[in-house]
Amino acid sequence: MSTSPKVAVILSGCGVFDGAEIHESVFTLYALDKRAANYQCFAPDIDQAQVIDHIKGEVVEGESRNVLVESARIARGNIKPLSDYNAADFDALALPGGFGAAKNLSNFAFEGRNCTVNADVERAIKDTVAASKPMAALCIAPAVMAKVLDGVEVTIGQDEATAASIEAMGAKHSATGHGGIAIDPKYKLVTAPCYMLDSTITQVADGADAAIEALLAIVEDGEAVK
Amino acid sequence: MSTSPKVAVILSGCGVFDGAEIHESVFTLYALDKRAANYQCFAPDIDQAQVIDHIKGEVVEGESRNVLVESARIARGNIKPLSDYNAADFDALALPGGFGAAKNLSNFAFEGRNCTVNADVERAIKDTVAASKPMAALCIAPAVMAKVLDGVEVTIGQDEATAASIEAMGAKHSATGHGGIAIDPKYKLVTAPCYMLDSTITQVADGADAAIEALLAIVEDGEAVK
Repeated sequence: MSTSPKVAVILSGCGVFDGAEIHESVFTLYALDKRAANYQCFAPDIDQAQVIDHIKGEVVEGESRNVLVESARIARGNIKPLSDYNAADFDALALPGGFGAAKNLSNFAFEGRNCTVNADVERAIKDTVAASKPMAALCIAPAVMAKVLDGVEVTIGQDEATAASIEAMGAKHSATGHGGIAIDPKYKLVTAPCYMLDSTITQVADGADAAIEALLAIVEDGEAVK
Repeated sequence: MSTSPKVAVILSGCGVFDGAEIHESVFTLYALDKRAANYQCFAPDIDQAQVIDHIKGEVVEGESRNVLVESARIARGNIKPLSDYNAADFDALALPGGFGAAKNLSNFAFEGRNCTVNADVERAIKDTVAASKPMAALCIAPAVMAKVLDGVEVTIGQDEATAASIEAMGAKHSATGHGGIAIDPKYKLVTAPCYMLDSTITQVADGADAAIEALLAIVEDGEAVK
């Protein structure tokens, strides 16, 4: 490749239970940077659906946080509103997981197969597909892809109830284990289960790395081979 | 080593400007786990000194967050109050950086050489030294060590003003570059600059990895060689 690829990363807050899963997000950025890919973080400028106390696992009533502002914690301040995303400026798009993908980028955590997807997120995905550029989605983020992309093939690991909801949206689910990925050649979409499996942090690092390696291979080759 | 070493990790919130630096924290946990060391996260159960909007870089007036509860975002809920830390239960102690080390674990960011250190943090450090077990501190966290440990040798990279404040507390400062570490054999303390240098995420991963590798080597050998 003559120039470094540029990859947009969509974050969904900061913390597994109400935002972007922190480890998956950091390992996504690391996997890009160590392969000399440039990244730019984005997030929707909206209130989080919930704020969760990450010790108690309970909703904090009366507290509100903004998805873009909280995502900036992972991005060390270098982040843009997702409404600014232009597929023409990037070579690929990546979505780490965490409940933020299912509570903020979409409402899959609450509505399952009947979920809706945030308008900026849906536009970003559709514009990237229209530009014939590849995407990666980790953990539960493939559920967002399943809602937006008709008949897409994804993996969220081995959770049967989640897989059933994904198939109910018209997608195809492939079961995978640690380090496994699924590739949909038509949509140039790479998915990996990460913390949707019971995982160590090293297994999640390996899963994110495998997904980003495959994503950048599609950028380089121009097409996805399953 | 016959059994996996157990390492306590002290977090200081969740986000570089008012808490634990997220990348340094994640790479610390990763460097431990990939070497088959077990880790347990701790944080003081106190209010953060500040809440900073990580886009604007400004204090959010009227908002309060708890250091332990926010640190749980990085630890995925698996965290204990630092008052529960018992040096006898662990083989080593590690402190990632971020302004949380200088605003919550201590007030070095506000008071410089005249700073005070949180009582639980001071006790954890002194008990670990008394038990003759090694420690690692990244980024600005070495400033906390400089206040607590008389005459300790540390590195925070190359920032001259910070180094001067550290030496004013009676410590010795060694300048280091990317991937460099300082080792104080007397206190069995490993320090590394990480984001105290202008760094890529890969350089920070390498820096945390070098520090944890050195820390676990001291656990294995029982002594620190400079």
